[in-house]
Amino acid sequence: MMNSVDQVNAGVNNSTSRTVETGKIRLEDLKDIARGAGFLGCGGGGDPYIGYLIAKAAIEECGEPELISPDDFDDDGVVVGSAFIGAPSVMQEKCISGEDAVRTIRRIEEKLGRKVTALISGEIGGLNGMLPIGAAARMGLPVVDADGCGRAVPAIDMTAWNAAGLKPGPVVLVNEHLDTVLIESDDPHRAEDIARSAVAAMGMSVMSALYAMSGSDMKQASIPYTISIARGIGRAIRAHSKSPVENLLDYLRTTTHFNQCGVLASGKITYVHREIKHAWVVGEVKIQPDNGDAAEINFQNEYLQLKKADRLLATVPDLISVVDSETGEPIAAEALRFGQRVTVIGASSAKQLRTPQAISNCGPKRFGIGEHYEPIESINNW
Amino acid sequence: MMNSVDQVNAGVNNSTSRTVETGKIRLEDLKDIARGAGFLGCGGGGDPYIGYLIAKAAIEECGEPELISPDDFDDDGVVVGSAFIGAPSVMQEKCISGEDAVRTIRRIEEKLGRKVTALISGEIGGLNGMLPIGAAARMGLPVVDADGCGRAVPAIDMTAWNAAGLKPGPVVLVNEHLDTVLIESDDPHRAEDIARSAVAAMGMSVMSALYAMSGSDMKQASIPYTISIARGIGRAIRAHSKSPVENLLDYLRTTTHFNQCGVLASGKITYVHREIKHAWVVGEVKIQPDNGDAAEINFQNEYLQLKKADRLLATVPDLISVVDSETGEPIAAEALRFGQRVTVIGASSAKQLRTPQAISNCGPKRFGIGEHYEPIESINNW
Repeated sequence: MMNSVDQVNAGVNNSTSRTVETGKIRLEDLKDIARGAGFLGCGGGGDPYIGYLIAKAAIEECGEPELISPDDFDDDGVVVGSAFIGAPSVMQEKCISGEDAVRTIRRIEEKLGRKVTALISGEIGGLNGMLPIGAAARMGLPVVDADGCGRAVPAIDMTAWNAAGLKPGPVVLVNEHLDTVLIESDDPHRAEDIARSAVAAMGMSVMSALYAMSGSDMKQASIPYTISIARGIGRAIRAHSKSPVENLLDYLRTTTHFNQCGVLASGKITYVHREIKHAWVVGEVKIQPDNGDAAEINFQNEYLQLKKADRLLATVPDLISVVDSETGEPIAAEALRFGQRVTVIGASSAKQLRTPQAISNCGPKRFGIGEHYEPIESINNW
Repeated sequence: MMNSVDQVNAGVNNSTSRTVETGKIRLEDLKDIARGAGFLGCGGGGDPYIGYLIAKAAIEECGEPELISPDDFDDDGVVVGSAFIGAPSVMQEKCISGEDAVRTIRRIEEKLGRKVTALISGEIGGLNGMLPIGAAARMGLPVVDADGCGRAVPAIDMTAWNAAGLKPGPVVLVNEHLDTVLIESDDPHRAEDIARSAVAAMGMSVMSALYAMSGSDMKQASIPYTISIARGIGRAIRAHSKSPVENLLDYLRTTTHFNQCGVLASGKITYVHREIKHAWVVGEVKIQPDNGDAAEINFQNEYLQLKKADRLLATVPDLISVVDSETGEPIAAEALRFGQRVTVIGASSAKQLRTPQAISNCGPKRFGIGEHYEPIESINNW
């Protein structure tokens, strides 16, 4: 495992120079960021198109927010994670005022007795890649070009921040009525349990502020450059000079975190089973290639593992993402349909999600799908 | 209905002079207060003996707290309701540090930016009649001789405070790990829903601080003198010069709120059904007299209604309490057993729980047991 981390480290200088563009988050980049957030959502995290609409409305009303590199951020600044928690399907039915996210930050400031100086996405994957952009626009705050996961995860204690020893609390939740819940706990897992229950009672759709941290903690514990990378992924899919899937893989190979990547399966969806369990979308999908063994993916909001002929080819926290074979557009677990022609792309997760603590928080054992984690590039000899 | 309220009002001056003794809450009075709180618990509210042990330990460690009449309280003082929320059976299994209740008050002070000057019991019935006494002892604060219900109720939006237009929030919940949840909502019913869910995730046993209010609001909206009345009830049962049940009724007739009272049924328990539904103890009990029709009581934590030969004789919010026919000791719904010889006592609820708003909050319709409320004294021609 150390080998893979070393390889990732070795790629940092080369790749970041190519992917990071700070300055303003431009309105015309939002769709690319959303598409990239969809890919990094690994099937979950909610529809980034909804996040796109919310961020777009906020920017049109309040202007483009500043995108600030984590490297340039003041060590003594106060950064707060911003994220939607709940059922994206419920969120789509409700009106989002934007006021809810602003309220979460104001309550954190009241609790800390300090002004928040920047927002950061709790998870870049899915709609949470977009919502902090909208909140930052409304508040006139910069967004840090980084996030807490480098993908989407289904629980607030599964972040790289928690793996690095930062606490999620105080966690503030605000729903569409502006009902407000503030949670403090020394134990990230209990904080998650309490937040999850409160979210259900609050109507399954809340904005949260969490993991308030100093600039220096943010630099140490976050996954850097992920808004820029999401934009790069979106561009790569859109600008398909050759096959968009090949283009996407070429781009991923240039990134800091996701450079160990490849096609895990390709074919037609021949089976989908989906059910709601504990407010998660749980199920499995089978993908049959024209020749050879079918691939099976289990999901719980996000794609958890992929097997071919009972051989495990990828597990969380590594990225498994299903895209349309022709267009390269990412497909959420909720949108999988019988007969779709899809390609499954696997990629290394950020090294911050591969530490022993992170693997314990969000590796296969946490999801009950296996005892041990093996990096995707080692399984597949990439 | 106005008649009954007028009668209650007419009794105030006479009765309070006989029941109120302020000064210190004395250690030797705790058992009487607990027994009275058991009666006023109407079958629910948790075992006051546990509350007695907790209050006793706090007083032995920190001294007797002051009992202050609501009439003497500073209009500009800050009073906060204190109450256990959860499953009393779980609470009995866990260690109570006393630190949890103190923490709830400290967090309310932090939120209000003001010092709390007295505690008040959220509900006098059951263990919540006792716990604020222990918390006040630990904090060196006085306890107001009053409460939010004049009985026990199963939800935080069923208080007389809410009926009078006061808001439960900010509600602070603290469990044995000192995990802390602060809830703000304009809507008391949503505040209850959110608190109930949070309590479940926090381990079904938390101390709460709620209904922070000014001294003048407290005077307008609370049920006065109920700690003194609980002590009086306890004494009346203990000092059974003649039958303790008769003695108890004689005492109740002297009180401000519960003076319309009588025996609703007496006999042997021939049937008990109890189940756990949504963290409530729900069920029914049948009491067969030596001659005549059996009485049936439905309960949801508290006794909700009593019928004899399908004729309704009492419903919430009026008090229905089951006592041992021989000793007069109150029997909680959880402690009902086949073969027990019991007497069911009914009494008028405080007038503050009989306003149209209060009847809507905690009358028969709220519990799904009937459309209309009729005062117990009018049904029974007392």
